Amino acid sequence: MDLSAHIAALRSLIGEAAVLDDRADMAAYATGARYDEGRAAFVARPSTTEQVSAVVSYCVRNDIPLVPQSGNTGLVSGSTPDTTGTQGVLSLDRLTGVFDLDVANRSVRAGAGLRLSDLNARLEDAGLFFPIDLGADPRLGGMLATNTGGSRFLRYGDVRRNTLGLKVVLADEEGTVLDLSDELRKNNTGVDFKQIFIGTSGAYGVITECVLNLEALPRQVATALLMPASIDRVPELLSHMEAALGGYLSAFEGMSGNAISAALDHVPSLRNPFQGGIVPEFVILAEISRSNAPRKGEQSLDEVLETVLEEVWETHEGLLADALVGPPQEIWAMRHALSEGVKHRGRLIAFDLSFRRGDVMAFLARMRRELPSNFPDVAICDFGHVGDGGVHFNLVVARDDARLQDDGFENALRTWVFDIVVRDFGGSFSAEHAIGRKNQAYYDRYTPAEIRRLATGLKAVLSPGRIGAARF
Amino acid sequence: MDLSAHIAALRSLIGEAAVLDDRADMAAYATGARYDEGRAAFVARPSTTEQVSAVVSYCVRNDIPLVPQSGNTGLVSGSTPDTTGTQGVLSLDRLTGVFDLDVANRSVRAGAGLRLSDLNARLEDAGLFFPIDLGADPRLGGMLATNTGGSRFLRYGDVRRNTLGLKVVLADEEGTVLDLSDELRKNNTGVDFKQIFIGTSGAYGVITECVLNLEALPRQVATALLMPASIDRVPELLSHMEAALGGYLSAFEGMSGNAISAALDHVPSLRNPFQGGIVPEFVILAEISRSNAPRKGEQSLDEVLETVLEEVWETHEGLLADALVGPPQEIWAMRHALSEGVKHRGRLIAFDLSFRRGDVMAFLARMRRELPSNFPDVAICDFGHVGDGGVHFNLVVARDDARLQDDGFENALRTWVFDIVVRDFGGSFSAEHAIGRKNQAYYDRYTPAEIRRLATGLKAVLSPGRIGAARF
Repeated sequence: MDLSAHIAALRSLIGEAAVLDDRADMAAYATGARYDEGRAAFVARPSTTEQVSAVVSYCVRNDIPLVPQSGNTGLVSGSTPDTTGTQGVLSLDRLTGVFDLDVANRSVRAGAGLRLSDLNARLEDAGLFFPIDLGADPRLGGMLATNTGGSRFLRYGDVRRNTLGLKVVLADEEGTVLDLSDELRKNNTGVDFKQIFIGTSGAYGVITECVLNLEALPRQVATALLMPASIDRVPELLSHMEAALGGYLSAFEGMSGNAISAALDHVPSLRNPFQGGIVPEFVILAEISRSNAPRKGEQSLDEVLETVLEEVWETHEGLLADALVGPPQEIWAMRHALSEGVKHRGRLIAFDLSFRRGDVMAFLARMRRELPSNFPDVAICDFGHVGDGGVHFNLVVARDDARLQDDGFENALRTWVFDIVVRDFGGSFSAEHAIGRKNQAYYDRYTPAEIRRLATGLKAVLSPGRIGAARF
Repeated sequence: MDLSAHIAALRSLIGEAAVLDDRADMAAYATGARYDEGRAAFVARPSTTEQVSAVVSYCVRNDIPLVPQSGNTGLVSGSTPDTTGTQGVLSLDRLTGVFDLDVANRSVRAGAGLRLSDLNARLEDAGLFFPIDLGADPRLGGMLATNTGGSRFLRYGDVRRNTLGLKVVLADEEGTVLDLSDELRKNNTGVDFKQIFIGTSGAYGVITECVLNLEALPRQVATALLMPASIDRVPELLSHMEAALGGYLSAFEGMSGNAISAALDHVPSLRNPFQGGIVPEFVILAEISRSNAPRKGEQSLDEVLETVLEEVWETHEGLLADALVGPPQEIWAMRHALSEGVKHRGRLIAFDLSFRRGDVMAFLARMRRELPSNFPDVAICDFGHVGDGGVHFNLVVARDDARLQDDGFENALRTWVFDIVVRDFGGSFSAEHAIGRKNQAYYDRYTPAEIRRLATGLKAVLSPGRIGAARF
């Protein structure tokens, strides 16, 4: 059978308009968020779990490789087809029909195609939100398939921690539907199968529906910019802030001076808040928040933050060089501009890393020491989630740098960095972006043979079909 | 080969004294925390991961069934041998050598044999603790194998949520050691294999070492006893308390009047705090806490609790019948005495259930309506974790009740309750005790065939040997 016969068969299963094969229609589904241009054999857009099952079953029986795609905002080529034109895209973008809020349970049942922003807009009246805070606006299926973290991980954890249940279609000949979507917070009656589908890029099955934990919306927020006296004392600062602030601390983000300068240059509406306009070498964004409305007799959060910072100043000599308590909107505007700002500095070579919390700054210090002699003229513009050990380690090279013509340069640079991360620090080469074609080689390089063997065995049990951009 | 030859072989692997075969020496390892008396072929007590691997490998190669045992405080016969005398006990009680605290990372690496109380005692100086609060004092391996929850689940979650890494020995011919013990909070580089070993009673492998998340010790606590006007309005009370108290709320426990009366009768040192000494039908224990030392200008937690309760009183007419803010030690003493108190009322038939949070009270109301006509003279003495949907649903029958002579009575009663829990409410028949011989029949009854097939397939990939008291 040729491709057009398969497309006709898929159309008979889920409807004429639900399967795209026109090159122009497919373009948005074949192109990733960064750099990545692939070619799709077709794009199937089922609108129910049963339709997903029908598509997957058909493709497995006919040995057609499928790449599930959700919001397509990922950064590792985990949701787009390769350039061969043989892979079909299984888009989840029409799986938006399910939305069932349970206020008493603080949970929501939702289709995998719902966007994060749409979900939160629909929860606002109930005073609730899904507490994963991201720069991008992904759909839920992709958030689950990558197990995203974001800026409030420190308080609320990752997607895994906030998932109560899933509905999944396995890539087997039957397109088996696994209903793991009970709405319970505690249920220890065997293997917690849903965990296998979280963070594995669709390779073990396609998530079509989820039950998510919700949290009360923050109703009071205060933020400060902290300038540590030296970057190696940042872990000490974090420990002290945690001890003094307990559950109030909701973000503890690191921003390199280079990243801040890039953002200030790129977004003229941002105010430069630093003394004399001089951007410090490294800045911490600290946020505290609480979900109750202000109460009679309650200290304001600005006061709390000021009291705690005064105390740090007085009792921990030399820890802080300076601190500015300022309006959350303005301070977060700067934080959210970093990513775009850095991209405009030149060609971005981005790493999504994590470490033991005490090691983040040691790694950054080592990079500042050793990168220039190994790879000269590469700027370090890192920022990230120091509070949970994460860092978006961004390297920027001038766009006209001749080395960029040579594939070997970027590969050598990546391998040099990753070897230090994984082998010297025991860190992760993909903290919250999961595995796609872009970091497949590093999965193969750093995953012990024993684990790779088990991952393959597990796939044979659950989803033997050819599904997902990643090979586990 | 006969048993004595196997015991000699095991002794040559891990040392003469580390393998018990004397009936008296083995008694404590063969008897469970409740009712359950088994017979062990031997008890092997390895002291390192390598020794566990040697024992497991030997037993798999010789087809000797093993039951891993940790603190043996579980309630479902998940860690003791059956009565055949053919199963060996693999005790983790000597795996206590590893203890490595990382204050900056707020984590600890510890051996699976460490007791919860010992762990917390060693963490106290650092102002940290492992935030799973239980009546029993289990060892860590068992807490992981059952994924315990406890009284502060609402704030801190279960063991799964607080586990960063594991070291596991698989039940294969090699006794393969899987090192999944990185200390990272974020790492999405493939299947998160450690999740498979959490809550599965050792059937997929033996946990020998773990890396756990730690939290700051609470340094301010306030508690109250709340008397709801009617039990069906408890979910509303919970939602209101969560909205008003945000992250401060650390426990919201339900206690039936019957359970309280049993505790007051059994423990004479408990003070009866209720007006006129009349025990209400249902009482909520609410706790709020924070980990910072009192700060200048900060409202005390007693004041916070009183302000919030006044507000509930004024704005939600008829929600609360009464409320008493009282000393945490006294209030928790009553809560912790419930379990012992109930046991002394008669023969206990205990259920460890969970529901959507909004359904807990509806289930309890239905039981109060329907149990008497179906099973007369059975007292309902429930208590539990209303804040996370959990309830220890305890039924008590007079010890001299003739029906107890008949096995059919207890089985019929259990099946009647469980069918309502699972089929009518979509609840769990094992919220935080996992699966052992005692509830194996209910795993077989309520687990869909598809899931059982996958669980068996997964076991063949990971741990094909005969290990664990549960059959998945």
